[in-house]
Amino acid sequence: MRRVAVIGVGVTKFGRHERTSAELFAEAAADALADAEMPASRVQALYYGNVVGGETEKQLHTGPQAASVLGIPTVPTTRFETACASSHAAFRHAVMEVASGASDVVLVGGAERVLNVPTADSTEYFAYASDASWEQTLGLTFPGVFALVARAHMHKHGTTEEQMAAVAVKNHRHGVLNPKAQFRKEITLETVLSSPKVADPLKLYDCCPFSDGGAALVLASEDVARTARRPIWVLASAAASDWMLLGDKRDLSRVPATERAAAAAYRQAGIGPQDVDVVELHDCFTIAEIVATEGLGLFEPGAGGIAAEKGWTSLGGKIPVNPSGGLKAKGHPIGATGAAQICEVVTQLRGEAGARQVEGARRGLTHTLGGNTATVLVSLFGRD
Amino acid sequence: MRRVAVIGVGVTKFGRHERTSAELFAEAAADALADAEMPASRVQALYYGNVVGGETEKQLHTGPQAASVLGIPTVPTTRFETACASSHAAFRHAVMEVASGASDVVLVGGAERVLNVPTADSTEYFAYASDASWEQTLGLTFPGVFALVARAHMHKHGTTEEQMAAVAVKNHRHGVLNPKAQFRKEITLETVLSSPKVADPLKLYDCCPFSDGGAALVLASEDVARTARRPIWVLASAAASDWMLLGDKRDLSRVPATERAAAAAYRQAGIGPQDVDVVELHDCFTIAEIVATEGLGLFEPGAGGIAAEKGWTSLGGKIPVNPSGGLKAKGHPIGATGAAQICEVVTQLRGEAGARQVEGARRGLTHTLGGNTATVLVSLFGRD
Repeated sequence: MRRVAVIGVGVTKFGRHERTSAELFAEAAADALADAEMPASRVQALYYGNVVGGETEKQLHTGPQAASVLGIPTVPTTRFETACASSHAAFRHAVMEVASGASDVVLVGGAERVLNVPTADSTEYFAYASDASWEQTLGLTFPGVFALVARAHMHKHGTTEEQMAAVAVKNHRHGVLNPKAQFRKEITLETVLSSPKVADPLKLYDCCPFSDGGAALVLASEDVARTARRPIWVLASAAASDWMLLGDKRDLSRVPATERAAAAAYRQAGIGPQDVDVVELHDCFTIAEIVATEGLGLFEPGAGGIAAEKGWTSLGGKIPVNPSGGLKAKGHPIGATGAAQICEVVTQLRGEAGARQVEGARRGLTHTLGGNTATVLVSLFGRD
Repeated sequence: MRRVAVIGVGVTKFGRHERTSAELFAEAAADALADAEMPASRVQALYYGNVVGGETEKQLHTGPQAASVLGIPTVPTTRFETACASSHAAFRHAVMEVASGASDVVLVGGAERVLNVPTADSTEYFAYASDASWEQTLGLTFPGVFALVARAHMHKHGTTEEQMAAVAVKNHRHGVLNPKAQFRKEITLETVLSSPKVADPLKLYDCCPFSDGGAALVLASEDVARTARRPIWVLASAAASDWMLLGDKRDLSRVPATERAAAAAYRQAGIGPQDVDVVELHDCFTIAEIVATEGLGLFEPGAGGIAAEKGWTSLGGKIPVNPSGGLKAKGHPIGATGAAQICEVVTQLRGEAGARQVEGARRGLTHTLGGNTATVLVSLFGRD
């Protein structure tokens, strides 16, 4: 298997856009190709993530549409959908294509448009990632899913609402430093704690927003990457799944798929959590960040809330988590999220993250979660 | 890259089912694993195709659901969606995973449920595979797309409605021999020609039906396959795309993506169309079969209609096409179709196709088309 590098990244501003998801992807992809100094004509395949396009845009078959809008209609293209982890799944399969020698230059990305439909509708469409027969029929939507996770974590570890709120405060503080972030204003613990309840104990500011946006990156084989300006190497990319139904899981305070994907990724890369300098992880709700920091081995089980409270995950802390602002402040255009996390870690490892730079970062990790904690992707990156 | 084999196949009966797509897939997958004499616990990854689950079942994230229902929730799983070619795309990426050495045993398949919604709704949902901004808004649905293809082919090559009807008659004759087919009755040219117009010149019997169903197959590395009862080798698997919009295509009488995917597959396998003994191809409409036989190089451009009329593509003819009955008679549960075509060719190459066996078949080809001819997959198979 050959080494694979990311040689170009591009992300749209996240937030409300009056453009189709294919157009949002085109902006991100053009930026990624320009960043890689690579003409579109050299792209040999497109790996594309999109989730609710059928619901919000009446658009399936978004792979060839994304290729057409870029003017490279003849490259093989596939749409990947694994709920919020879709473009991270696309990335993992693209890495296999380049590593196996099948292609030398592959474009990866994703996009989503959801702010063109009412919030009640997008909430319902997102819930399609949970089981239609047994969960949706009970009225379960994702704030409810993560409220159950939060309750389990509070019960088992004594995690507090203040600790969860600290995640939101930290990610908003980071988001101020990211020109592409949807929310660029600091908030206080009090802002979070006094915000309206969405699904007890989760309040409005414990939840990431709905967002439109696109993200893209250019993958290259080692030979091609050696001629690139700033290659960042893919050290590992691993996926794991878990039972679809919440009711089939034994302990909602953990995400076993995160633990398995992380273990596989660390094994592939031959490093451990102590070797990671910067992390972009899936904070769809504040509790999700706390549980993920534990599942990734950054902190002991039960210590994720304490770490958030003590600032260990802040820029300047022991292990900065979500310097981009995370899903909470940067935004969460679901089909773009996994690719956008990778773009941030690559930018950090290049040392080009400006005001939000993690000084001296050499190894980075991205973590994306799909659905009822049923799909997790973890990838590791390093610079020479 | 390692050699890869199909060592087990399973297909549900196609038609109307009162089960979810995940349950339909589970039936097919259990059959495929039993056929491979392989316990589910040895499966290392699931590659899954599903298209309109969001629309007809309010179900996205169908990969982990399919794995859960099989009792293998922890294997990495991804849903692929490239319109009607979805499970063929899943197959191609799964072949890469095994060929690259990442896994030894991979389950591939797909399922779809559409007969639980009114025909007008499924027609609209299928149209989501065409462009939402420029085509759906004009009322274009797939019978209209292929009526345009038929008109272009008739104009350029003199293809007749009787030649198209001959495809339907042949595929219905084949379907009678397939216990899993949705339609098992012979029809006459007159049945087709006198059936109601759907989109002139296409009539009801020029169109494949809506179908529920599932299909699955077990892929194995060469080492594992050598211990299997009847391995059938994957000689090639190639994808090609084309402009999304019909209006961007130069000549609707051809499908350039078919021509490119076929050329790539023949090159990979080191064989040509003259070496193929049996073909399962994408006859969503009768004209699609005619155009595909030309694009795959089985007949010269313009000769596909003549070949159909003269019986060259019948069982017993020069090159039997769609011995299963094809999408026309076997049915077209879109997410399952690509996998089901592969199951048929594997069954043929094993010499186990019973009354519809192509005698002495050693090399087989499958061809699946997605959307407005914008995605095509072609794979080649051979027995020792």
